[in-house]
Amino acid sequence: MTYAPPLDSMRPDPELEAVLPVLAAVRERAPLVHCLTATVSMSLVADGLLAAGARPMMTETVQEAPVVTAVADALSINLGTLSTDAMDGIPATVEVAARDGRPWVLDPTAIGIAPVRTPLARRLVEQRPTVVRGNASEILALAGTGTGGRGADSTATSRDAAEAAAQLASRTGGAVAVSGAVDLVLDGSRRTEIARGHALLARVTGTGCLLGALTAACTAAWEDPFEAARAATTWLDLAGERAAARAPGPGSFRMHMLDALDEVGR
Amino acid sequence: MTYAPPLDSMRPDPELEAVLPVLAAVRERAPLVHCLTATVSMSLVADGLLAAGARPMMTETVQEAPVVTAVADALSINLGTLSTDAMDGIPATVEVAARDGRPWVLDPTAIGIAPVRTPLARRLVEQRPTVVRGNASEILALAGTGTGGRGADSTATSRDAAEAAAQLASRTGGAVAVSGAVDLVLDGSRRTEIARGHALLARVTGTGCLLGALTAACTAAWEDPFEAARAATTWLDLAGERAAARAPGPGSFRMHMLDALDEVGR
Amino acid sequence: MTYAPPLDSMRPDPELEAVLPVLAAVRERAPLVHCLTATVSMSLVADGLLAAGARPMMTETVQEAPVVTAVADALSINLGTLSTDAMDGIPATVEVAARDGRPWVLDPTAIGIAPVRTPLARRLVEQRPTVVRGNASEILALAGTGTGGRGADSTATSRDAAEAAAQLASRTGGAVAVSGAVDLVLDGSRRTEIARGHALLARVTGTGCLLGALTAACTAAWEDPFEAARAATTWLDLAGERAAARAPGPGSFRMHMLDALDEVGR
Repeated sequence: MTYAPPLDSMRPDPELEAVLPVLAAVRERAPLVHCLTATVSMSLVADGLLAAGARPMMTETVQEAPVVTAVADALSINLGTLSTDAMDGIPATVEVAARDGRPWVLDPTAIGIAPVRTPLARRLVEQRPTVVRGNASEILALAGTGTGGRGADSTATSRDAAEAAAQLASRTGGAVAVSGAVDLVLDGSRRTEIARGHALLARVTGTGCLLGALTAACTAAWEDPFEAARAATTWLDLAGERAAARAPGPGSFRMHMLDALDEVGR
Repeated sequence: MTYAPPLDSMRPDPELEAVLPVLAAVRERAPLVHCLTATVSMSLVADGLLAAGARPMMTETVQEAPVVTAVADALSINLGTLSTDAMDGIPATVEVAARDGRPWVLDPTAIGIAPVRTPLARRLVEQRPTVVRGNASEILALAGTGTGGRGADSTATSRDAAEAAAQLASRTGGAVAVSGAVDLVLDGSRRTEIARGHALLARVTGTGCLLGALTAACTAAWEDPFEAARAATTWLDLAGERAAARAPGPGSFRMHMLDALDEVGR
Repeated sequence: MTYAPPLDSMRPDPELEAVLPVLAAVRERAPLVHCLTATVSMSLVADGLLAAGARPMMTETVQEAPVVTAVADALSINLGTLSTDAMDGIPATVEVAARDGRPWVLDPTAIGIAPVRTPLARRLVEQRPTVVRGNASEILALAGTGTGGRGADSTATSRDAAEAAAQLASRTGGAVAVSGAVDLVLDGSRRTEIARGHALLARVTGTGCLLGALTAACTAAWEDPFEAARAATTWLDLAGERAAARAPGPGSFRMHMLDALDEVGR
């Protein structure tokens, strides 16, 4: 069974056109993305990567994760659960990826008042992640200029975090993506805003975690971190727009979003 | 996209009318609910809270959970997995919630023969949970008058557990909700039965865990524990009825139930 | 709501006919299946068992898993995450099941270069699992004649692993099922190939884990391990075929597959 294409897919979409080569590269390369991620969103992250044409791998113990990461094409680190296993496994795995020059993404989920993940996230920045991805409160807390949001929710807009994001980019030499109603992506010399997506993206658990992993998939298939981060953000935003047109509520939105990740730009 | 309202939504529903103010309060306040819950149902619990208008938070290590629970509006404790992290994190986090007078829900999933969670659940009762929620076998085992069910399934009806539930309520000073084909909600002075819902609710993993978390969301937005517990039970039952009318099987039922949590009573 | 039966369901399907008694036995007995499985696929495994008429149980700590497994009808061991809890819990739980003569399934997910799960899987073979289920790379690595795939993906076909599977079967005395585009099921004296299913099964996380758990459910309800393994493989393949006929993408495929597990052979 296939859907008829939505009417607006007949018109050219400049924001989609700009990122199409990255989407095609992910589908062509089918990168293996090693994810150490929040337990609650593991299933969405893995299914979202598969829908996008990438492949997930999720081992997180310190005994195995640093060994098996050697076969991955990119690494995605999300601090949303930070189990005891992940506390030990994350730093050791990042060290291998950084040493081997493998692209990796840091998603400092829910840092701020949390006493373990906040200093850990700041230490991981010193390992120079290819892309840092978070909401505005998380980016402010990571840069040391904010105290974080409430739980996984931001209490600031992406523009509020623009300066903090630029500081982070100057320290990592990579790109920083700030998610929100308007998304911001920047690196040391470029900056763009993406005003796409749909409010239902915030009513499904783990869409932010998925964006981090999808960003890692893009960095595995595309050299330029700024372009990879912009592509991943646009990809999920457009999938969200398509899903919202089909979904009467958040449960069906989640399903249609996964279908749409597979469709966008084909 | 929106559904046409089901025909029967044109008629008044007295059980829905009775709980509408609680549902409206949850949607208005959007409480942050800290959940330490079974791994298998984390995704359903989090998506269900978001669909209902609340917000989930799921940190469970002893290093972080007792700290971050300070920003939550309610706490939901479910013993369905009881990982090593949760064994340490749960008692420490409940202690903070109890000390701060924050509402919290105890869901003694699958107690009975399990040697760690059973005595832990009984100790947690001494911290006087705002609401205890479980199936009949779990409530009987918690009160010390039964040996539990098989796995997460009850081998008794809610009426079999009425006396045990009343004993628990007298010890906690709060409400007790017993789930089953007929649900029972009571506190020290009131008792009600709710004969709504649908058999498919038992064919999706984690609907009981979700009911515990939804109950916590209601206690965060509504002062009276009995009315909060009755509202949460009714809310999920009515969402189940709507979903069953749309779903040809358990997979689609799960999705429609999440959509319906967002719709009921709007 | 019910679907009209697909047109081809009007024609007899010999591969379905051959396994119908096993499906009916699972639905009749509703076995309780204790699963120690990859975190990412817990939800699909549990919902899939419920859709098939079985019941899941997922405790995995060494303190509780060996105790509660006594009430289970079968045990399913999947090494896909191998958390610290599972590292300790799995061998102790298998020991109880083996001692009590309870059927159990070993799914050596993603073994090969992983330094803990690979020797663990080989040790567990000595406990003589009723069925071993894996993809070709995993079966080759388990038999000691291959180095595994990349992550959870196979880099070989099921026919490549036929000899390794036969060796394993001669060591366990049970059945071995090798998943792939063509599935292979064998024991010491019988061998069959099943060329059913759909490519979308590989685009949803955890369908292999679900097959392991479904196989355990079949061994609980059906004495002959070879017939049980063949029935589980056929059951999931046919559910995949039905789902693919309804699903425009991998997100909706997952949902329809769960509905179809409930429908096949009724």
